[in-house]
Amino acid sequence: MNRLKELGINAKKAAPVLAAASEQQKNNALMRIADALMQNSEEIIEQNMIDLDNARKNGLPNHMLDRLALNFKRIEDIAAGVRHVATLKDPVGEVLSMTRRPNGLLIGKQRVPLGVIAIIYESRPNVTVDATALCIKSGNTVILRGGKEAFLSNIVLTRIMRECLVAAGLPEDCVAIVEDTSRESAIALMQLSDYVDVLIPRGGAGLIKSVVENAKVPVIETGVGNCHTYVDNDADLDMATEILYNAKCQRPSVCNAAETLLVAEKVASEFLPRAKERLDGMNVEWRGCEKTKEILHDIKDATEEDYYTEFLDYIIAVKVVSGVEEAVAHINKYGSGHSEAIVTNNYFSSQRFLKEVDAACVYVNASTRFTDGFVFGLGAEIGISTQKMHARGPMGLDELTSVKYIIYGEGQIR
Amino acid sequence: MNRLKELGINAKKAAPVLAAASEQQKNNALMRIADALMQNSEEIIEQNMIDLDNARKNGLPNHMLDRLALNFKRIEDIAAGVRHVATLKDPVGEVLSMTRRPNGLLIGKQRVPLGVIAIIYESRPNVTVDATALCIKSGNTVILRGGKEAFLSNIVLTRIMRECLVAAGLPEDCVAIVEDTSRESAIALMQLSDYVDVLIPRGGAGLIKSVVENAKVPVIETGVGNCHTYVDNDADLDMATEILYNAKCQRPSVCNAAETLLVAEKVASEFLPRAKERLDGMNVEWRGCEKTKEILHDIKDATEEDYYTEFLDYIIAVKVVSGVEEAVAHINKYGSGHSEAIVTNNYFSSQRFLKEVDAACVYVNASTRFTDGFVFGLGAEIGISTQKMHARGPMGLDELTSVKYIIYGEGQIR
Repeated sequence: MNRLKELGINAKKAAPVLAAASEQQKNNALMRIADALMQNSEEIIEQNMIDLDNARKNGLPNHMLDRLALNFKRIEDIAAGVRHVATLKDPVGEVLSMTRRPNGLLIGKQRVPLGVIAIIYESRPNVTVDATALCIKSGNTVILRGGKEAFLSNIVLTRIMRECLVAAGLPEDCVAIVEDTSRESAIALMQLSDYVDVLIPRGGAGLIKSVVENAKVPVIETGVGNCHTYVDNDADLDMATEILYNAKCQRPSVCNAAETLLVAEKVASEFLPRAKERLDGMNVEWRGCEKTKEILHDIKDATEEDYYTEFLDYIIAVKVVSGVEEAVAHINKYGSGHSEAIVTNNYFSSQRFLKEVDAACVYVNASTRFTDGFVFGLGAEIGISTQKMHARGPMGLDELTSVKYIIYGEGQIR
Repeated sequence: MNRLKELGINAKKAAPVLAAASEQQKNNALMRIADALMQNSEEIIEQNMIDLDNARKNGLPNHMLDRLALNFKRIEDIAAGVRHVATLKDPVGEVLSMTRRPNGLLIGKQRVPLGVIAIIYESRPNVTVDATALCIKSGNTVILRGGKEAFLSNIVLTRIMRECLVAAGLPEDCVAIVEDTSRESAIALMQLSDYVDVLIPRGGAGLIKSVVENAKVPVIETGVGNCHTYVDNDADLDMATEILYNAKCQRPSVCNAAETLLVAEKVASEFLPRAKERLDGMNVEWRGCEKTKEILHDIKDATEEDYYTEFLDYIIAVKVVSGVEEAVAHINKYGSGHSEAIVTNNYFSSQRFLKEVDAACVYVNASTRFTDGFVFGLGAEIGISTQKMHARGPMGLDELTSVKYIIYGEGQIR
């Protein structure tokens, strides 16, 4: 793992240079990257096609192949994303507060970069560029460890970005990619505590589990979303049907899609058939508790494991509950702390749900699908944190910073 | 380790109850604790005296015995501290920002407790109460793992606090203490990831190292302070002498005391003899580089290891540097990212030092001894974070919270 240590040393060495760079200089690098991606799109697509061929031979499923694929339109979108990041406000250097203390000291709290960020992610090569753009803008150097499927795509994308950094007068080591895509290299990166300030894993439950087990560097967990929609006693059932349909079906493969429907006993017999009819249009598979099955016949049993599962597919687990109290208890037991919604007309149910559900994003009368940095107005998103430390929910540029106290004195002693 | 898991389960079960408690109810518990500490001071002192006897037999050094000792005055101070925490603003529930998005969603960012906090600390039994009071006020349940020297003191203090919580209508499991003070129990607590949301280790370099090696729960590192005072070319040497004297000698055993003096070449021959004379009053031992030794004869050599060392004693390492650039490089290499000071009359030196030194607190013309939650106006302090994630520098009640997005909709779908 000597190569990994070398990447760590280089990233740490580049970090103060990037941290001290002006916004102008960082934006210049980003604009160059956007241009270079377009200019080199043929080479990128060439390398991506080799990745795709290999992935097909290795039997990667179709939806993964789709995530892996780059074409001219997608490269254009990636470049547009980088240009958009250039337009966002640079968080570095902002003084969040500054007060004069009784002894005359002027004490300010200033945003600074985190330092070296490591990102472990899976097959989507757009992350290589998206994440790097956000790290550069927020003054952080980044060590990328992408999946083996996108290996050649990631290599060429990283090479282009390094060239653009140099052209903008910044160290090429502001971004680097781990060439070894073995499981061991991921674990070694999780343990590179002398060089990595924060690790952001972007992937499924397996990656998160490995990070909890192995990481020795500080981690921001992202991604796993076992989200619920709870239809309360006093819900508008038309609204509830549309919210459920949207949360489950609009894009089931993403982390903010609904996985379990909870429905209050009083409205279950009216709501469940309507909801099922609506979701039948997308051939959603229903898995229900005993009470659900008394209303909807011919559906599968929901197992204990189903309630813990992020299906990411046209499958929904259902449970009939007595009311908001049981709904909250179920969510806090089985949920992953991502996004949770109640549909209700009742003021006290809404307030109780907002207060007691322990999750990053808690919704009243809206689809969980809105959990997203752009929708929330952050201007960008490097991931959705499901942990409580440092950042929770969608993470934008501010969440990629730390603070430093700056203190102006006139000779004060204690 | 079944007992530890039981503590984890209980703390996690109590967490939502405490999170939902009103500020009034939490303050009521705190006032009861303050009263009960005073009422039970004889029993506390009795148990503390057994701890002291045992510690003396085990050869605990005098300064550690002093930290361990409780007497009526100290218990009074601890109780006063708890009453002070009751007067502080409850951070829980505060909405930091709330905006209406183009689609009509009202999205707010609300402070919530972290959940279950674990604290591993060493011989001072006052931490048992101080830390618990801050956790209760911020709505967090706490699992304490104190040192074996304070075992009986901690047990009685925890019992009293648990009784007061119950009397205030809160779960006794809002605070619990690990009765096993072995190294294994500390490691097991660091790995209790199903129950502990955040671990705050309070101790020396050995504890921090063990945490980095073993922790599987999110950690906020605190404490280690290898702090520098840099005297610039353009410094007011009288001011520099007093700042150095204060930073080194006012209380050398604490984390914000100076450990290394850096002095610019141009002023070294004038400054060093003056500084030495001033510090000789406290019999400070000097360890210098070659250039220092050319000016101050008869002092020890400073080794590479000395520059890395937090002496916590009347010892100072000295290095003559060419100017602010070398000073910053030295600090960023050897420092622990705690508190760093420059003494200068030069505007650009001050700005450069503030910008480039990578530490929680960076001072111009003031003693590093001011790094403290009370001095900074936080109203309290549970520790001083030396990491960049979540919190950096002195941590008060706000730093013991996370956030939750609360979203008010009217049926919005994506």
